[in-house]
Amino acid sequence: MRARAKSRFSLNQWTTRRWSVAEAVDGCVRHGVEAIGLWRQDVAAQGLKETVELVADAGLRVSSLCRGGFLTSGDPQALDDNRRAIDEAAELDAACLVMVVGGLPGVVPGRPLGAISRDLPAARERVAEALAVLAPYAGERGVRLALEPLHPMYCADRAVLSTLGQALDLAEPHPPEQVGVVVDTFHVWWDPDVLEQIARAAGRIASYQVCDFLSPLPADVLLGRGVMGEGVIDFAPLTEAVAAAGYSGDIEVEIFNADVWAADPDEILARVRSSFAELIGE
Amino acid sequence: MRARAKSRFSLNQWTTRRWSVAEAVDGCVRHGVEAIGLWRQDVAAQGLKETVELVADAGLRVSSLCRGGFLTSGDPQALDDNRRAIDEAAELDAACLVMVVGGLPGVVPGRPLGAISRDLPAARERVAEALAVLAPYAGERGVRLALEPLHPMYCADRAVLSTLGQALDLAEPHPPEQVGVVVDTFHVWWDPDVLEQIARAAGRIASYQVCDFLSPLPADVLLGRGVMGEGVIDFAPLTEAVAAAGYSGDIEVEIFNADVWAADPDEILARVRSSFAELIGE
Repeated sequence: MRARAKSRFSLNQWTTRRWSVAEAVDGCVRHGVEAIGLWRQDVAAQGLKETVELVADAGLRVSSLCRGGFLTSGDPQALDDNRRAIDEAAELDAACLVMVVGGLPGVVPGRPLGAISRDLPAARERVAEALAVLAPYAGERGVRLALEPLHPMYCADRAVLSTLGQALDLAEPHPPEQVGVVVDTFHVWWDPDVLEQIARAAGRIASYQVCDFLSPLPADVLLGRGVMGEGVIDFAPLTEAVAAAGYSGDIEVEIFNADVWAADPDEILARVRSSFAELIGE
Repeated sequence: MRARAKSRFSLNQWTTRRWSVAEAVDGCVRHGVEAIGLWRQDVAAQGLKETVELVADAGLRVSSLCRGGFLTSGDPQALDDNRRAIDEAAELDAACLVMVVGGLPGVVPGRPLGAISRDLPAARERVAEALAVLAPYAGERGVRLALEPLHPMYCADRAVLSTLGQALDLAEPHPPEQVGVVVDTFHVWWDPDVLEQIARAAGRIASYQVCDFLSPLPADVLLGRGVMGEGVIDFAPLTEAVAAAGYSGDIEVEIFNADVWAADPDEILARVRSSFAELIGE
């Protein structure tokens, strides 16, 4: 008999980035966390089979596997890599495989521009084409792809998918159990259409991720994510809209932040749980 | 008799930021530039009356005055300051007064967060209310307010207006000669709806500003603007859409960039003119 209600808090592994998979699983157990979001490279470092066992032994749900995607180049190798990511997500029984679709072909995050394509509509079309191949493959393995719109400041180098509306348009041709969307507060809070699009996303929300948007942004804008309450986001309307759209799954805290990464992971986990309880829910 | 076709290239003064108004006017004459976008603080430093004379003597058009706005706090002093900006735009016979509407109340660009409001819809509502006061005032003086949607990365600290669609919604209750919009390639290039919204903006485009979006972004994201061709933007579809929407006014080159500001302004002006001729138009 379980005395308490299920906790929906999930630790995205990169919030406590110094921890290996084994350490993060231990941390979750120690802090009474029931779900974890895993990253492929850390799973590979731990070993896929061992990760499956660690997670099962700890009784954790895997709220997501990060990440597939990077589909804009049209490179067939990218499809192969995504098939492997889908296989891994199936092994881990992850609630979804997060898809960061990729930026303009040739643009490498953090590097000076070399030969690139500036054809944004074509890059988006490559994503739609790849999805038509990958969605059935995922469906056959019981894996749900979760399209993640990224903040428009990452349009060139990480994701040509910038709004929830766009993600839903892209998901629409596919069954909801094959292709869903991620609502990540950091990426969507600014969008004047966000509440309307969250409502439209009913049945398609595969993951709800929370963290704050810092102001001013740090020098590396990738690390502009903060603990909830330390930035500019009003979480309540977003969390309510996600609930009203019928999403009742785990809620991942995913924070990329140099100070958070430098701190003691146990302290960080305690801090984000407290902030989560105050600003997000139980 | 003018032998050549009118040139639509306009130098936004902050592209050659080291130049005073007098120096920028001289530079325009020297380089055969017919139009200039001015900034209020530089005009004040030169003197409004003297600026009017300098510009008239040089035969320059003033394609915009930057900038009014910062209306989200609901502070009545902000309205007074905007009335002064409108008066100045009238004196200068500027084609428009660019409006950067302001971020979340209390958020100061570049400063750590103190007491702020996180109520984004309320901040947007303050802008609509202020516009209802300022638009008729501008109309009486023959000044057109130009609402500028800023890239979503500035939503917290500079403009709660993030998309062209939102700017058009905000402009809609007002006559087009009182309230128009700015299309700035840097701010809108990522938007999946941008071409559709530019078409919708027919009759409302008060200014077309061009510069590139750099990748990676520099440490201060405000300075992520580059000379056309040095970043990720495909200019042709945007320029064609703006033309198809009927805009035939000046096209301002506005570049905030530490390297550009450090270089010799004459060289910069020659370089942006050449890049403009190649990527934008005559």
